Amino acid sequence: MLSRQQLIDQIKQKKSFLCVGLDTDLEKIPAFLHNYADPIFEFNKRIIDATRDLCVAYKPNAAFYESYGVKGLQSLISTYEYLPKDCLSIIDAKRGDIGNTSDRYARAFFDEAATGMGFDAITITPYMGHDSITPYLAYEGKWVIILALTSSVGSKDFQYLQTNEGLLHEAVINKCNTLAGTDRIMFVVGATKGAEFENIRKHAPHNFLLVPGVGAQGGSLEDVCRYGMTPECGLLVNASRSIIYASNGEDFADAARAEALKLQQQMAEELEKAGISPS
Amino acid sequence: MLSRQQLIDQIKQKKSFLCVGLDTDLEKIPAFLHNYADPIFEFNKRIIDATRDLCVAYKPNAAFYESYGVKGLQSLISTYEYLPKDCLSIIDAKRGDIGNTSDRYARAFFDEAATGMGFDAITITPYMGHDSITPYLAYEGKWVIILALTSSVGSKDFQYLQTNEGLLHEAVINKCNTLAGTDRIMFVVGATKGAEFENIRKHAPHNFLLVPGVGAQGGSLEDVCRYGMTPECGLLVNASRSIIYASNGEDFADAARAEALKLQQQMAEELEKAGISPS
Repeated sequence: MLSRQQLIDQIKQKKSFLCVGLDTDLEKIPAFLHNYADPIFEFNKRIIDATRDLCVAYKPNAAFYESYGVKGLQSLISTYEYLPKDCLSIIDAKRGDIGNTSDRYARAFFDEAATGMGFDAITITPYMGHDSITPYLAYEGKWVIILALTSSVGSKDFQYLQTNEGLLHEAVINKCNTLAGTDRIMFVVGATKGAEFENIRKHAPHNFLLVPGVGAQGGSLEDVCRYGMTPECGLLVNASRSIIYASNGEDFADAARAEALKLQQQMAEELEKAGISPS
Repeated sequence: MLSRQQLIDQIKQKKSFLCVGLDTDLEKIPAFLHNYADPIFEFNKRIIDATRDLCVAYKPNAAFYESYGVKGLQSLISTYEYLPKDCLSIIDAKRGDIGNTSDRYARAFFDEAATGMGFDAITITPYMGHDSITPYLAYEGKWVIILALTSSVGSKDFQYLQTNEGLLHEAVINKCNTLAGTDRIMFVVGATKGAEFENIRKHAPHNFLLVPGVGAQGGSLEDVCRYGMTPECGLLVNASRSIIYASNGEDFADAARAEALKLQQQMAEELEKAGISPS
């Protein structure tokens, strides 16, 4: 489990704020891996081995594992067990339900004794309000990463609605920041919204932001840093497909490392520009 | 799989619009069931046998199963297989993610060949907009049940925000009803909001509404019907804890039946009042 300070230390040491998204798809992994008993885990294991010194977080996307039923869940549990302890482990589950049900989802992903999974953080969706969030916060030291402004085309449908408490995503950030401190709460903000990070930072000046959409979805790392970086970095930039599917040959892990390295080097430059370095 | 017309026919035949929620909790089921290999499935099986002629839908709550890891998922799959084909099978999963991920969740719960589960309907959360919903609609004949106005205390945080397109939950209903017809889209509206059904019906005059919160959460069936019933009924009223945990002794299935029967008899009266009967 990584505290806020430990996460910041990892970012400084590795000169990276990269999160590798494990959206592992049986149809996209190299064919030779299908000879293994658990091809998904075998793929993830090699991706993790190839990138662990270049990133500070891993984020398996629950949907991909769930779409393979019991086998997929077993792959997810094996992947969780294999994640390096110096990286933040995020389950991208986007759950959201009333209190007594959120309590069960928290148990599913946070309570290793119950399910074999004890992720550090979970993504959740805020529509049902505070009681859909607080059950996760009952797990000491665990992080909640709340959807604010996403990079999907549908983000325009509701997240930008003007409400009596500001734009909906602003209202979400303001409300959720009353529930716990910046050592427990992050927000998802899509990288396709570069310039909007400036506004997001008015509402979430200190929170870490989990930023999907760099790479395959077209967001610019430079813009995200220009408008979104704080003196403690405050960013976790996720890349999934552009790293893990860089090649579908036997060299996939090397190709993934090369892509992760490119991002890490850009991140090192951005951190240096901002004067963020190991103390 | 039940079409809209088949669902209406079932409601008329059974004189019931009851949905039984299977929020099955190992800590609450009778102790003697723990002697079985799969106590959760054993419990659900007996609940289903005791109530299947009194209800038109079953709704397992995914969180409860997920909180038991691989075993829980196996119990959920066995439960799915056991659900009567003349009842609508709803997975209460409240998922919500971007297109390529929603596509995976759809596969997880709709594609029986992939996971062993081919539910008729899934609950989803609308925060990410239309592309988080359309992948489910690609499965012909399946239903999407979208959170609109929930019975949780946190429902006040965002769902009632006044926006430039009406209250947020009104904007959700209006937008989502442009995505497909009332043969594919339902909304969740909590029973604790009795009088508000009148307003909801202005925005969703023909949709079926899935109504949690009767019983344990304190909503009134009479109010829900007064303000929410349509000439085709248009309601699925869910009860979970008040039915399945009516007793925790060896008589639990009989006690569940007695509770379900009480609700079914009230529903028969409401249907009669409204002149809804088999043609």
